[in-house]
Amino acid sequence: MSSATAAARGVLYIVSAPSGAGKSSLVNALIKRLSFVFLSISHTTRPMRPGETQGEHYHFVTSRVFEQMAEQGDFLEYARVFDNHYGTSRSYVERELDKGHDVILEIDWQGARQVRAQMPEAQSIFILPPSLEALQERLEKRAQDSADVIARRMRDARSEMSHYDEYNYLVINDDFYKALDDLCSIFIAQRMRTPMQQRLRGDLLDGLV
Amino acid sequence: MSSATAAARGVLYIVSAPSGAGKSSLVNALIKRLSFVFLSISHTTRPMRPGETQGEHYHFVTSRVFEQMAEQGDFLEYARVFDNHYGTSRSYVERELDKGHDVILEIDWQGARQVRAQMPEAQSIFILPPSLEALQERLEKRAQDSADVIARRMRDARSEMSHYDEYNYLVINDDFYKALDDLCSIFIAQRMRTPMQQRLRGDLLDGLV
Repeated sequence: MSSATAAARGVLYIVSAPSGAGKSSLVNALIKRLSFVFLSISHTTRPMRPGETQGEHYHFVTSRVFEQMAEQGDFLEYARVFDNHYGTSRSYVERELDKGHDVILEIDWQGARQVRAQMPEAQSIFILPPSLEALQERLEKRAQDSADVIARRMRDARSEMSHYDEYNYLVINDDFYKALDDLCSIFIAQRMRTPMQQRLRGDLLDGLV
Repeated sequence: MSSATAAARGVLYIVSAPSGAGKSSLVNALIKRLSFVFLSISHTTRPMRPGETQGEHYHFVTSRVFEQMAEQGDFLEYARVFDNHYGTSRSYVERELDKGHDVILEIDWQGARQVRAQMPEAQSIFILPPSLEALQERLEKRAQDSADVIARRMRDARSEMSHYDEYNYLVINDDFYKALDDLCSIFIAQRMRTPMQQRLRGDLLDGLV
């Protein structure tokens, strides 16, 4: 692969946020607005649930397949949640990027570190709430949890947020549509880079110079 | 100056385009839309014209002052046009950047090379017309020039455009408002970078982590 081709591929984005910051709503709205951006589909050993589709919600695999992928070094990042494994396949992501798609990984700071170690060209974005009070309000609204559960979630959120400075970009979700515009600008600006425009608008450029 | 301060300063932008691509209209609309972006004011030895203001349209200086500035290495770039000299003062630009202003230099590819040599962190943007035909139409509309003059301008435009790949970003001015949105995205995205957000939203961040 020539360096020109590599530079014209899609861009890999890492998006992290504490629970309650509005990350999923923002990312979903972003994907609806920008046709060239796709959410990465993880591999998991968790059983498929009713209504889920293979390759759409997850790539559902057996524990044996997951272990083989891990042994072959195919995971950009992976984590165990209770009894199930979740991971991002590098070969899957590379195929998406080669198509010219921008790919978003919604992962936490630990996953982000794993990905950066393997793909340092990844662009990382951290989404923050406007204040601790606003975050607590959102967590309280979202579920009728006990004060203990809310307190634990706030501790987890503060722990996640303590890593914001490991990210390239910060988006503060105070006003949803302002935050969405800011987020979109990051993706659009990367798209305006010369090597990407050379790939996307090659015919037009050939006609000019 | 600490590296954190340096990283949080405004961003220097170089914007180039062939005559007729719509650069000035786009840059003026951009400056109206984004309050943190300013057009650099050049130094010149050309006499002030009626209606012009010192320090607003240009910094008007004598030939002796201009020469002294050049000898002291204060010019990021300069050029002679007929009998007059025009240049961009580095100390002026540095002061603007230190205020947190983004600064735009509207210069040609030769000036861009001079600036990059001294400030490699500058972000450069090239604005292109959608086709040679569109460019010719715009040049013909703009002035009642002879066919010879139009032909010379087209040659100059093609010569300028042949340097587009020396720039970080390409904006194609097919639809004016689409091009303006694309251009704004570049400036907004740079603003979302973590060191800049740390400076702009320091209080908010201190309250979160």
